[in-house]
Amino acid sequence: MNFKIALIRGDGIGPEVVEEAVGVLETVGARFGHSYEWIDVLMGGCAYDAKGTPYPEGTKEACQRADAVLLGAVGGPKWDNLPPALRPEKALLAIRSDLGLYANLRPAALRPALKAACPLRSDIADKGFDLMLLRELTGGIYFGERKRYQTEDRGEEASDLMKYSEMEIERIGRRAFELARLRRKKVVSVDKANVLETSRLWRAVMHRLAAEYPDVAYSDMLVDNCAMQLVRDPSFFDVLVTENMFGDILSDEASMLTGSIGLLPSASIGDRTPGLYEPIHGSAPDIAGQDKANPVAAILSAAMMFRYSFRLAGEAAAIEKAVDLALSSGCRTADMAGSGAPLGTREMGKIIRGNI
Amino acid sequence: MNFKIALIRGDGIGPEVVEEAVGVLETVGARFGHSYEWIDVLMGGCAYDAKGTPYPEGTKEACQRADAVLLGAVGGPKWDNLPPALRPEKALLAIRSDLGLYANLRPAALRPALKAACPLRSDIADKGFDLMLLRELTGGIYFGERKRYQTEDRGEEASDLMKYSEMEIERIGRRAFELARLRRKKVVSVDKANVLETSRLWRAVMHRLAAEYPDVAYSDMLVDNCAMQLVRDPSFFDVLVTENMFGDILSDEASMLTGSIGLLPSASIGDRTPGLYEPIHGSAPDIAGQDKANPVAAILSAAMMFRYSFRLAGEAAAIEKAVDLALSSGCRTADMAGSGAPLGTREMGKIIRGNI
Ligand SMILES: CC(C)[C@H](C(=O)O)[C@@H](O)C(=O)O
Ligand SMILES: CC(C)[C@H](C(=O)O)[C@@H](O)C(=O)O
Repeated sequence: MNFKIALIRGDGIGPEVVEEAVGVLETVGARFGHSYEWIDVLMGGCAYDAKGTPYPEGTKEACQRADAVLLGAVGGPKWDNLPPALRPEKALLAIRSDLGLYANLRPAALRPALKAACPLRSDIADKGFDLMLLRELTGGIYFGERKRYQTEDRGEEASDLMKYSEMEIERIGRRAFELARLRRKKVVSVDKANVLETSRLWRAVMHRLAAEYPDVAYSDMLVDNCAMQLVRDPSFFDVLVTENMFGDILSDEASMLTGSIGLLPSASIGDRTPGLYEPIHGSAPDIAGQDKANPVAAILSAAMMFRYSFRLAGEAAAIEKAVDLALSSGCRTADMAGSGAPLGTREMGKIIRGNI
Repeated sequence: MNFKIALIRGDGIGPEVVEEAVGVLETVGARFGHSYEWIDVLMGGCAYDAKGTPYPEGTKEACQRADAVLLGAVGGPKWDNLPPALRPEKALLAIRSDLGLYANLRPAALRPALKAACPLRSDIADKGFDLMLLRELTGGIYFGERKRYQTEDRGEEASDLMKYSEMEIERIGRRAFELARLRRKKVVSVDKANVLETSRLWRAVMHRLAAEYPDVAYSDMLVDNCAMQLVRDPSFFDVLVTENMFGDILSDEASMLTGSIGLLPSASIGDRTPGLYEPIHGSAPDIAGQDKANPVAAILSAAMMFRYSFRLAGEAAAIEKAVDLALSSGCRTADMAGSGAPLGTREMGKIIRGNI
C-alpha cells in the first residue's frame, strides 16, 4: 500500500528522532511492500521563528490530506516567554482540536530488560505492569472558556471552564471498552464525582456503557486515589480512561513509573481523521543536534501508527519486536542507565532497522 | 492554658483514633500544664443517620466557638449513594469554607524507621525526603459554579468553573513562603500555566511574592511534570504550593510515597479562625470498632494543632518524639508491615502516651 504521512519534525531533538522513525518506516515498507509519500509540515517554535506563528496557515490542511501524522516534539525555553497565543503548545492544542483527536492513547509498560530503571521498589517492579491510559484530548478545561477580569475587593480574577457533554464522554468511553477487549478486559474510569458535576455526568455515561460491555470488568476510581494506586500497584490497571486534565497528570505519573520516558510513544486519534503519533518526551533542547537523543519513542510511535491508523498489526509488531531485541541485547542511548558506552541516535536507529 | 477543642469523631474508625488523640492531648496537658474543654460535634455520615443531614445546624457555630477542631474521619460506602448534597464529603467542603480554612498543610516525610514501607526503589528511598505540600483549600474548581443542562446535539452537558482571585492566591502564597522560612527555604509552585488562565494569574502573583522573599529559593513547575518528579526524586521538594484540585491529586501521590498513609496528619488553617486537624486516611469502615486502626495520624494531627493553632512548638515536638520513639522501637499497628504481632489502637495510644 501507499501511505501519505505528514511529518512535523518540530523543535529540539524532534527532527533527529523523526528521521530515525522515517528510516524504520522505510525498512518496514521494503519488507512488507508499502511505500510512502512524505509531507513536511511546519509547526511549533520553528514555525514561529520562520513565520511568526506556531501554527501557520496550511498546517492543518496538510495534515488533513495525510493518512497519518508523525510528530517529533515542539516547544522549548526559547519560546516560553511569548504570549500564550504564540507559544508552541498552542499549536499542539489547535491541531488536536482541528483534527478531532479526542482519544489519546498512552501505553505505560515495564519492559523486563529495563526493570532496573523502574523507580519502584523491586518487589513492585518484579510484578511488572502493562497499562494503557486513555485520555480524553479535545474537551474539558483545556478547551473551555477562559476569563480574566478586575474585581472590586479581590484584585484580578481569572477563570477556566471545565465542560463535558454526553457525546464527548460516550465516544471516549467506547474506545476504552473496545481497547480493553483487545487486552485484559478491564476498564478503570477515573473521575472526581464526589466534587465535580462533569465527573458525575462522566460516571453516569460510563456506567451506561459498562452495561453494554458485560464481558469487560469495570470500576470507577477517584482521581486522588488513582494517583496513589498507580504508585502502590500499577499492575492493578489494564485500561485507565479519564478526562483531559486528569489524563495529563496521571499519564505523566504512569510514564515515570516505567523509568524510561525516552521509550514511550503515544497516539492521538479521532473518527475518520488522520491520527497523530508522537513520543511523550519533550524537545530536550540541551542535547539537540548532538546525536544523543533516544529515537525509540518516535520509532514506537510509528508502530502505533501501523496499529491504529493503518490497522496493520503485523507491521506494528515487527517494529516493536525489533525494539525489544535491541533493548534486550543491551543497546542503550545516553538517557538510559547502563554499562558500556551509550549509542548515538543514528546508531540506535540503524540497529533497530537491522532487526526488522 | 485552657483550650476549647471541638471533636468531630465522625464515621468508621474516626471515633477510635480521636479517642487516642484525646488521650495524648490529656497527657501533654498534664505534663505542660494545659487543660481542655471538649466540645463534641456531629458531622458526616453519623450526622446524616441521626439528623438527616451530614452538616447539621449548630455544627459550624460549635466549631467557631472552639480554639481548634480535631476530626477523625467522615464518610463510607454506606452513604455513597445519597444525592451529592447529603453526602458526608459535602460537610467537609462546607466546614472548610465556613471556617475559611484556605491553607491545607500536608507533610509527607519518609521516616527512617519505616523506609522498608516506601514503595520507591531503595536508592531513592535511601536519600529520604521531607516535604510539605500546601494546598489551597477554599477556592478553585471545588467551589466554582456547577451546571447541568440539555443540548440540542450533544446530549446532556455539565460544567464546573475553576476560579481564582489575586487575593486568594496571595494569601496561600504568603503561607508558602513563611513556611519555607521555617524549613529549607525552598518553594516550588505547581500550576498549568501553559493552558489555564487561573494558572497564569497564579504564577504572576507567586512571582510577585517571590520578589518579596529573596531569601527563599523559588521555582515554578507544571503539574504534569510535578506528578513525575515526585516519583523520580521526592527529595527535590521542600515546600510545594498549589491550587485545590492539583493539591488533592499531588498530596495523595506524595502521601503514598511515604508508604505509610496511616501515619500522616494534616492541618487546615485560615486567618483568625480555629484550625481543623485530621488524619489524611479515610474512615476504613471494614476495620471500624475492632481496635485495629492506626491512631498515629490522629495523634500527629494533635501535634500539628499545638504547632499551628496554639503556637506551642515544644508540646508539638513532645508528641512527635513520642511517636518516633514508638515507631523506632518497633511498635506497629496492623496496617504497617512488620514482624511480631501487631498492636491494637488502644495499646499503640498507650505506648505513645507513655513516651511523653
Ligand atoms: C504542552 C501541553 C499543552 C500538553 C498538554 O498538557 O496536553 C502536554 O503536557 C501533553 O501532555 O501533551
Ligand atoms: C472527600 C473529598 C471531597 C476530599 C477532597 O477532594 O478535598 C478529600 O479527597 C480530601 O483530600 O480531603
